[in-house]
Amino acid sequence: MTVKLLKNERIDQLFSEDIKVIQSKEVFSYSIDSILLAKFPKLPKKNGKILDLCAGNGAVGLFASRYTPLPIVQVEIQSRLADMGQRSILLNKLENQITMLNEDLLHIENIIEKNSFTHILCNPPYFKHSEESRKNPNLHLAMARHEINATLDDIVRISSKFLKTKGYLAMVHRPERFLEILDILRRYQIAPKRIQFIYPKAGKESNTLLIEGIKNGSEEGLKILPPLIVHNETGGYSKEIQEVYYGGE
Amino acid sequence: MTVKLLKNERIDQLFSEDIKVIQSKEVFSYSIDSILLAKFPKLPKKNGKILDLCAGNGAVGLFASRYTPLPIVQVEIQSRLADMGQRSILLNKLENQITMLNEDLLHIENIIEKNSFTHILCNPPYFKHSEESRKNPNLHLAMARHEINATLDDIVRISSKFLKTKGYLAMVHRPERFLEILDILRRYQIAPKRIQFIYPKAGKESNTLLIEGIKNGSEEGLKILPPLIVHNETGGYSKEIQEVYYGGE
Repeated sequence: MTVKLLKNERIDQLFSEDIKVIQSKEVFSYSIDSILLAKFPKLPKKNGKILDLCAGNGAVGLFASRYTPLPIVQVEIQSRLADMGQRSILLNKLENQITMLNEDLLHIENIIEKNSFTHILCNPPYFKHSEESRKNPNLHLAMARHEINATLDDIVRISSKFLKTKGYLAMVHRPERFLEILDILRRYQIAPKRIQFIYPKAGKESNTLLIEGIKNGSEEGLKILPPLIVHNETGGYSKEIQEVYYGGE
Repeated sequence: MTVKLLKNERIDQLFSEDIKVIQSKEVFSYSIDSILLAKFPKLPKKNGKILDLCAGNGAVGLFASRYTPLPIVQVEIQSRLADMGQRSILLNKLENQITMLNEDLLHIENIIEKNSFTHILCNPPYFKHSEESRKNPNLHLAMARHEINATLDDIVRISSKFLKTKGYLAMVHRPERFLEILDILRRYQIAPKRIQFIYPKAGKESNTLLIEGIKNGSEEGLKILPPLIVHNETGGYSKEIQEVYYGGE
């Protein structure tokens, strides 16, 4: 299989999962957040269907394919990124498992069946739309980082529509928006159930969180999972993160 | 100063702060939660007044006196515990700083001035009132652990009344009630600002949380503080907790 690379694109490989991802720092590169998000939910081996919203270059869905054989539908509004994702699907010979849709998630109701997914994964834009974000000359990066097309409220509202009852929504986001995230999940009947805070280093405040909720779940039994610390004291990756990148026991 | 000990009482000493606390396992003993709560808020050296609700045997206020010279008012409904607390105040010669009130916090409005405290500390009962708790033959322990007299809603409602605008409420509680805690704080205009999760061991879920909110504060800028891990891999206290107990650098 030969897959064409465009100008300034490169292929990165996640060693622990043996997945190749076409990247470009000019339009989109995945971060550790995508890797941690893909690993966060407990994806079953059968009886389910996964939706990856705000898919970007498809990294989250590509990584998730190593944890489950379930079908994965990816939705990405930017054609440039969806195209990179589509080529990565071919590069990894995952075309029988992963489907990339170059669509606006605000307008997928006629394409995707409601109440049909058991799991949704989403690495949304972290920042609110602002004058600053509108000024960003690189629209690819601006749209991935700022809520220019869809807000968090839009994304969760739509997620709730496409999830089956008792289906799971897993997201990665920033702690400074934690209260808002909880409010929005609950507004759309998604009960927060598992939260994991990511810390850049021991002794530092959390800069990232993983959260999973269940559609129409009860609000009893919220769990705060063990903390995940990215860097060790000498600045390298911690043992846990090394295992994520390069594979562990 | 000679302070009388009653039957089955003992004096425990927190070495790092040189504070003596009269305890009795039959009626009340402080846990590490009290120590962490006292250390959690940034108590100023001047211009303020501290209220310690659900004071128990007074441990939280006694420990807090080592971080600030500000006056501390303690409220404890159980006369047996308030009496232990009063004797610990004398034992530590803190009668000029700490006042123990043997009162029901639901009925202190005529005794304590509203909008008058800059800081409230509270280690409330963790568990909801249930048939089980009513059956507990030891009412002292049952009242300290279960919401028999006052619910979390009562405690936060009353805290909000007694706090000045921009005053701080710091609590220790359990993660399984985290969503409810956030709801109740916000219901009474206390904006959650700093949260720290405590984990019994690396790799384990959190079993305790510290949370601080500001009365009439904005909801921007919530911080998730560094994780605190109580035990190391061999089962002893972690370095951070050893410092809390025995003093550090």
